Amino acid sequence: MVTATVWNEFRHEREDDVVAEQYPDGIHETIAEFLDERGFETRTATLDEPDHGLTGEVLDDTDVLLWWGHAAHDEVNEEVVDRVQERVLDGMGLLVLHSAHYSKVFKRLMGTSCSLKWREAGERERLWVVEPSHPITEGIDEYIELPEAEMYGERFDVPAPETLVFTSWFEGGNVFRSGCCYRRGAGKIFYFRPGHETYPIYHQSEIQQVLANAVEWAAPGEGPDPEYGEREPLESIE
Amino acid sequence: MVTATVWNEFRHEREDDVVAEQYPDGIHETIAEFLDERGFETRTATLDEPDHGLTGEVLDDTDVLLWWGHAAHDEVNEEVVDRVQERVLDGMGLLVLHSAHYSKVFKRLMGTSCSLKWREAGERERLWVVEPSHPITEGIDEYIELPEAEMYGERFDVPAPETLVFTSWFEGGNVFRSGCCYRRGAGKIFYFRPGHETYPIYHQSEIQQVLANAVEWAAPGEGPDPEYGEREPLESIE
Amino acid sequence: MVTATVWNEFRHEREDDVVAEQYPDGIHETIAEFLDERGFETRTATLDEPDHGLTGEVLDDTDVLLWWGHAAHDEVNEEVVDRVQERVLDGMGLLVLHSAHYSKVFKRLMGTSCSLKWREAGERERLWVVEPSHPITEGIDEYIELPEAEMYGERFDVPAPETLVFTSWFEGGNVFRSGCCYRRGAGKIFYFRPGHETYPIYHQSEIQQVLANAVEWAAPGEGPDPEYGEREPLESIE
Amino acid sequence: MVTATVWNEFRHEREDDVVAEQYPDGIHETIAEFLDERGFETRTATLDEPDHGLTGEVLDDTDVLLWWGHAAHDEVNEEVVDRVQERVLDGMGLLVLHSAHYSKVFKRLMGTSCSLKWREAGERERLWVVEPSHPITEGIDEYIELPEAEMYGERFDVPAPETLVFTSWFEGGNVFRSGCCYRRGAGKIFYFRPGHETYPIYHQSEIQQVLANAVEWAAPGEGPDPEYGEREPLESIE
Repeated sequence: MVTATVWNEFRHEREDDVVAEQYPDGIHETIAEFLDERGFETRTATLDEPDHGLTGEVLDDTDVLLWWGHAAHDEVNEEVVDRVQERVLDGMGLLVLHSAHYSKVFKRLMGTSCSLKWREAGERERLWVVEPSHPITEGIDEYIELPEAEMYGERFDVPAPETLVFTSWFEGGNVFRSGCCYRRGAGKIFYFRPGHETYPIYHQSEIQQVLANAVEWAAPGEGPDPEYGEREPLESIE
Repeated sequence: MVTATVWNEFRHEREDDVVAEQYPDGIHETIAEFLDERGFETRTATLDEPDHGLTGEVLDDTDVLLWWGHAAHDEVNEEVVDRVQERVLDGMGLLVLHSAHYSKVFKRLMGTSCSLKWREAGERERLWVVEPSHPITEGIDEYIELPEAEMYGERFDVPAPETLVFTSWFEGGNVFRSGCCYRRGAGKIFYFRPGHETYPIYHQSEIQQVLANAVEWAAPGEGPDPEYGEREPLESIE
Repeated sequence: MVTATVWNEFRHEREDDVVAEQYPDGIHETIAEFLDERGFETRTATLDEPDHGLTGEVLDDTDVLLWWGHAAHDEVNEEVVDRVQERVLDGMGLLVLHSAHYSKVFKRLMGTSCSLKWREAGERERLWVVEPSHPITEGIDEYIELPEAEMYGERFDVPAPETLVFTSWFEGGNVFRSGCCYRRGAGKIFYFRPGHETYPIYHQSEIQQVLANAVEWAAPGEGPDPEYGEREPLESIE
Repeated sequence: MVTATVWNEFRHEREDDVVAEQYPDGIHETIAEFLDERGFETRTATLDEPDHGLTGEVLDDTDVLLWWGHAAHDEVNEEVVDRVQERVLDGMGLLVLHSAHYSKVFKRLMGTSCSLKWREAGERERLWVVEPSHPITEGIDEYIELPEAEMYGERFDVPAPETLVFTSWFEGGNVFRSGCCYRRGAGKIFYFRPGHETYPIYHQSEIQQVLANAVEWAAPGEGPDPEYGEREPLESIE
């Protein structure tokens, strides 16, 4: 059984009524709940817990970590960032949600600024599937429509995704690479654009389906555990 | 349950004693047997059957097709090649084995010559895993050693694989991209180099494991079935 | 000096007044002219010439071939397709323009159906640069706007491009991977979406700039000419 | 004219007689000299200079930075690493040489451990070209042979290269992805494996040719300079 830990800043929901209405117990609880319903073992962790809730013990028991952050990226401790990066390189899956494009964890793993264009105008978004054979698209139609979304637009300053699964169209005239798969070390990473805190996006069933698919896809496998460092020859050398 | 159809020319085994000793019932039966033992529903098809054993009905009931050919690529009917290509684009998985790099089916799907260097000198091969997070490497060590192999060497004239999983070292001084993943249409393709007819390669357990992993990986999913052609606008146009 | 051959069906321009108004001497002449002005040695070839104007001699003297076709893909001779494919694999560059996504040449080199959604509604298109470090974007702004365009929409059934340079936004709600780079054999291929015959798209300076950049990029280099077939070992084998 | 800055730790050459014999004035001087002979404007910078020789002013005037480090990666100041990363994202090319796989700069831009297997046994290496259409292979044969080399072996813990240009064969039984291209931000990065300090590798003409080609390839272009942050809509929103 795949174990998912949902991490959230959990600030907006306590400070902003509009957000609290969408996610009364926090975005993390909403996500954990629908993943639980889909058969994953789930746990949550938030910024204001000790170690941000991400102790070595918690991560030891995490197959896939979901990360939602927005306003408090800077408050995330470098040691926790180190720990998460290390675990990803060791095989833990990572799902980076919406505004977490700017999280320390994602920037660390990408090596780029992860900057983008944005606009909050409640405009329509349509996520088109461009790679229908990818397991993250299971059960999804040709596109997902979000009636109201914050806009994220290109240029998105990330390395070209190893697989580009979704591309977004926005009413205001922009496009965006919205579903991006990466491998880093032994770990799989999926960036998924939708998810603003003031829209009911995580209550939409297709979004829930994509995230469940992505947890399944990102879960660590049983591939080899490479050894590094000095090594004897396997063949005789003249 | 994933259904695999193993296709083989089935000529060498009937014409050459050395091959017959390795694969008395044909390479296809050996492969079908170990896939069957690993829980796949299997079937075989061979060149000299009507339609090469690959009728529309058989392909309708095939999740993943494995293809072994060597001496009789030219005898494969263009109509069957059309049919296999079409099914791959519709989502059927395809595993291309060893000398099938030169099959009409593979060349059709790659668009290149699929040429390579080769040598039959019974030399040692070592396949190194370069992408340990890929599901095709499940249960495999850092490398697979083949005591005696035909050599295939770069330049291998294929499109750069979307994921390069294995790279081979050969005793005689060559290297080769030995495990190459592609997506074509809704279908997944895996080219796997090992498998010469005069060596007991398909009796080796790691090779069996890789092929079983690859069948699992290449099986069609439940992603969207895109519609093509003329389409009405989804938004109003000025 | 890079030599470019511009191939065109040259049917629409002779049969349809609207097209003839945009391209009185044919799309090929317009393209050849602006490439010539940008310092390339240019030549044209059309469907109704013997060998479609693409004899071995002409291709011998072509660094980059540009291909525009639409209504008469089926009339292109298989031998000419073979010849063009072979030359691309040998290093000739190929620029595939707009409706040539459905040309035999492109389908042959891609191995897929190259299908897509389309609509002719004179809608606005905006091509966003997603890879600003690619030489094909030299001198281009963040996006190119086409006031009126035929729509091409995802899913575009091609292999994932090795580099995705442009992504299009369409007024009617669709997106498209509009600038796609591939390598096949020793040849470089660029698919570029804009270019419908009834709009003045090839008269637009940014489009001309992109095509000139692409000719420069796709021109063959002086890399090694790989040898294929049986090869002696480079090291002693036990 | 492309301007290249060659950075070197410049420690081995002053402390170790074997190295000093190969590179009496330092590896940086040898590299700068052969780049200069090939028509680049060159400059050098070393660890023990103020700011490691890499002030903002120097980087302002650098199209491509070459980086050689080995024993003193830890002594490189984080501020300089920040500065170099930022410049790469802004378009400066970066060539990462041999043991600089473990440099802070490269690890920062890759997001992974950049670990590998290694062995110093003076064994033979053969770098095979796997992508002969790439400009970095201009003027190179099908392979480059190094009579004596330090071994670097897979698993090399880097993101899959966007283009894999070279793959190495080693006498002792290992393989390695030896020539790896990446884009990060607007910058191009090339990792090139050969170059140990105790072997005359940078005196070998094919190695010099590859590095000159790579400087040319990595030089910044004139693509768009993307704008980030909040943006007005380009289309009216309902």
